Amino acid sequence: MKFTVNQIAGLIHGTVDGNGADIISEFGKIEEGKSGAISFLANPKYEAFLYESKATAVIISNDLKLKKKPLATLIRVENPYLAFTILLQKYQEMIAYVETGIQEPSYIDPSATLGENIYIGTFTSVKQNAQIGSGTQIMNNVSIGKNVQIGENCVIYPGVIIYSDTKIGNHCTIHANAVIGSDGFGFAPQPDGTFTTIPQLGNVVIEDHVSIGANTTIDRATMGSTKIGKGSKIDNLVQIAHNVEIGQNTAIAAQVGISGSSKIGNHCLLGGQVGVAGHLIIADHTIVTAQSGVTKTVKTPGQTLGGTPASPNVDYLKRNALIRQLPDLFEKINQTMNLSN
Amino acid sequence: MKFTVNQIAGLIHGTVDGNGADIISEFGKIEEGKSGAISFLANPKYEAFLYESKATAVIISNDLKLKKKPLATLIRVENPYLAFTILLQKYQEMIAYVETGIQEPSYIDPSATLGENIYIGTFTSVKQNAQIGSGTQIMNNVSIGKNVQIGENCVIYPGVIIYSDTKIGNHCTIHANAVIGSDGFGFAPQPDGTFTTIPQLGNVVIEDHVSIGANTTIDRATMGSTKIGKGSKIDNLVQIAHNVEIGQNTAIAAQVGISGSSKIGNHCLLGGQVGVAGHLIIADHTIVTAQSGVTKTVKTPGQTLGGTPASPNVDYLKRNALIRQLPDLFEKINQTMNLSN
Amino acid sequence: MKFTVNQIAGLIHGTVDGNGADIISEFGKIEEGKSGAISFLANPKYEAFLYESKATAVIISNDLKLKKKPLATLIRVENPYLAFTILLQKYQEMIAYVETGIQEPSYIDPSATLGENIYIGTFTSVKQNAQIGSGTQIMNNVSIGKNVQIGENCVIYPGVIIYSDTKIGNHCTIHANAVIGSDGFGFAPQPDGTFTTIPQLGNVVIEDHVSIGANTTIDRATMGSTKIGKGSKIDNLVQIAHNVEIGQNTAIAAQVGISGSSKIGNHCLLGGQVGVAGHLIIADHTIVTAQSGVTKTVKTPGQTLGGTPASPNVDYLKRNALIRQLPDLFEKINQTMNLSN
Repeated sequence: MKFTVNQIAGLIHGTVDGNGADIISEFGKIEEGKSGAISFLANPKYEAFLYESKATAVIISNDLKLKKKPLATLIRVENPYLAFTILLQKYQEMIAYVETGIQEPSYIDPSATLGENIYIGTFTSVKQNAQIGSGTQIMNNVSIGKNVQIGENCVIYPGVIIYSDTKIGNHCTIHANAVIGSDGFGFAPQPDGTFTTIPQLGNVVIEDHVSIGANTTIDRATMGSTKIGKGSKIDNLVQIAHNVEIGQNTAIAAQVGISGSSKIGNHCLLGGQVGVAGHLIIADHTIVTAQSGVTKTVKTPGQTLGGTPASPNVDYLKRNALIRQLPDLFEKINQTMNLSN
Repeated sequence: MKFTVNQIAGLIHGTVDGNGADIISEFGKIEEGKSGAISFLANPKYEAFLYESKATAVIISNDLKLKKKPLATLIRVENPYLAFTILLQKYQEMIAYVETGIQEPSYIDPSATLGENIYIGTFTSVKQNAQIGSGTQIMNNVSIGKNVQIGENCVIYPGVIIYSDTKIGNHCTIHANAVIGSDGFGFAPQPDGTFTTIPQLGNVVIEDHVSIGANTTIDRATMGSTKIGKGSKIDNLVQIAHNVEIGQNTAIAAQVGISGSSKIGNHCLLGGQVGVAGHLIIADHTIVTAQSGVTKTVKTPGQTLGGTPASPNVDYLKRNALIRQLPDLFEKINQTMNLSN
Repeated sequence: MKFTVNQIAGLIHGTVDGNGADIISEFGKIEEGKSGAISFLANPKYEAFLYESKATAVIISNDLKLKKKPLATLIRVENPYLAFTILLQKYQEMIAYVETGIQEPSYIDPSATLGENIYIGTFTSVKQNAQIGSGTQIMNNVSIGKNVQIGENCVIYPGVIIYSDTKIGNHCTIHANAVIGSDGFGFAPQPDGTFTTIPQLGNVVIEDHVSIGANTTIDRATMGSTKIGKGSKIDNLVQIAHNVEIGQNTAIAAQVGISGSSKIGNHCLLGGQVGVAGHLIIADHTIVTAQSGVTKTVKTPGQTLGGTPASPNVDYLKRNALIRQLPDLFEKINQTMNLSN
């Protein structure tokens, strides 16, 4: 990559303060900035880095009042973080190398339906009656089961396994070795202590603009569908059990586990390693902090929850603070009340 | 699917109350029941749904006394949940499309031994001296290592990796991208701070009727065998470390981690995200609630444990209740004793 | 395997006490020792097993003073655990069957560069401009992305997916179905509640002698590199987020999750299911006990931390002990102060 600061400012509608002819050849963090790099300053907490940065250019806010003159050429915009993101996106589009065609050896059942301008990589299997929408890229070593429907302009990374009957919308991304549509964990205990297997006859339905992380597992429903709503983003190693429904634009961080039949609302955020028990309903705009365990339905939208069992996070933090005071408490009480005897 | 209520009642030995000629075309939950669907009512908690359900037929208990007349035709049986499960199983058998034969391209070493009526999917590798029992289906993109033995009537889903020397019994199911027999995490710290690798020369032994979830990992033993007992069921993303032994008919929910050399008894239930430390013994019929961490051997069978470190669940719940009372306690004590100074 | 005790003693520079002509045919644990097995006693805690063991030979310390005469022939060495590990390593080398060559069908892009004596298994894809160092074994069903560099004498197990631009050093081991270089979880919330995707343009860099477990995921950096330092060992199902840096000779147990941009020092030990929040720095020689959650930067090296939020483990254990005393405390206080009203 090689652009002048002026060219970049043009792309993001910014104003140049400094030498617009400087050459930019890479992106970098402001604290690691080096010659040739462009960086950004969004969080005022990091303003000190601006004056030390050796980056060639830094994107800053129109509103920022400088305490002293930085070394870098500045590009002023309304929203530096958004401007930088747009810059990354434009660069990514520029360098993206979209392959099309069917690469051999691969296996495509004659009954499958393929859209236009698709790519299918080596050692990928597409089974009976599967449908792949136009512009979708299916990388190598992928398994597309019977009757699977995948929409347009999706990217399915290597090693992904999609079981039969799964439906995936448009503009979805599924990262490597994720498993979609495996059997739900349904076993009924018998009087003799063994388990009988409850057939899992449903499927998984994933709406448009969903992203699913590497090695994540989403089980098919026992009956009906496990659902992931439009625009939701799921990180790596997440477990979504049978009959779960995730709303729209909800973000789920790595290693979260959601038990069977729970319904997560729209615009929720679940932190890493959170667990959600089964058959719960979580209201819209709920935030659950990392490692918490949600054990009850959350009716009031917009709450931040923490701890196991999860409660409003302020209460959880307050209790944690008091727990840290327990040694003092016990000591004083022991002195006063001789509790230890 | 298209059956009359009478036909279905015949399959599950039930008594029809209503129009036995009604046509059933799908399964459904009682609360979502719609015309053409058959559902069931097992838990009296949901009885209210029975009177509102638009399902065409509902399977209920012989003993249930109706409060009013439901819209649906009823099929009365002794155990509605079991009857419905049997119905699902019979339906699954009916629709199951069992493929046989070896699909090309696949790679089967000439020294491998294959039973009758097996299926091997595309891009699957079967290595030296592997043995596959009759009726076993190995889907596409699977890796069967050297000397692996797989019994009869197993289903190995796409992307499963089975390392050398693993032994798997009959009627086992292994879901996509699970890894069986990878090296245990054995590294001995050296005086200079580096690690030396302890060779993992053992294997994994899985008995009959075991089910293993997607993306689950089961490590081979350092010496001897990591063992999964007959009839045990393991969910997705579970980690079973080297030399662990799981008893019979034990159920392990998603994202559980069991550390090296621990022995879990028979008929245990481990909730989601539970952790078990190394070298422990967990007695039969132990239940560990979700997210708990077991740090000590559990000698008394039949306990329910909760929390980290895990203790009897009633104690854990009681302590949690008291922790929620800490703010009040501190306030009152501060008033009385001036603890804050 | 068939060796005399004398031959084995020669390999590990030990002194034989007993019948050096005894034949050894397998390795075993001292508590399970049977005729033909060789075992070792390192931890004095297990000394009682020595006198009961039916193993043919046991490796013990030069310093151990026997309480009575064991049945087994003894081999005395300075460090029994190390001697036994060396024995396992030598045996592993002896039985190792190193395949070389390119097994068909596999797909290697003509622009890829391959070292000498490499092995590439069936159904493996090696993409444009990838470089594979000499002596490296890439098993079957592996995906090596564009511009990936892999050093010498590595072992990449089946099903591993390595995204483009990843760099891997020499003597690394990556277990089955691990994913290296998937996109970091970067989504910027928009005013309308949807997310825009932040391109992940960086890569993953793995130094020499690193081991990575099955189904582990390591995300590429947004900009720059996610880094795993020399000699570090990572277990199964671990999540390493974008821009994380792991130091040298650090061991990370199964199901740990490390959030974006955190830096873990050298010689750290993270127990199973630990979570580390984002943008933290963890000092060298830090030990974090299993299931703990680290929420703040750890500046002082050499601490052992426990709990969520993690604190020095002694404090965490003390608080846990006090929490277990809460029922008594509440009862006594209620008696004294009538807190319940």
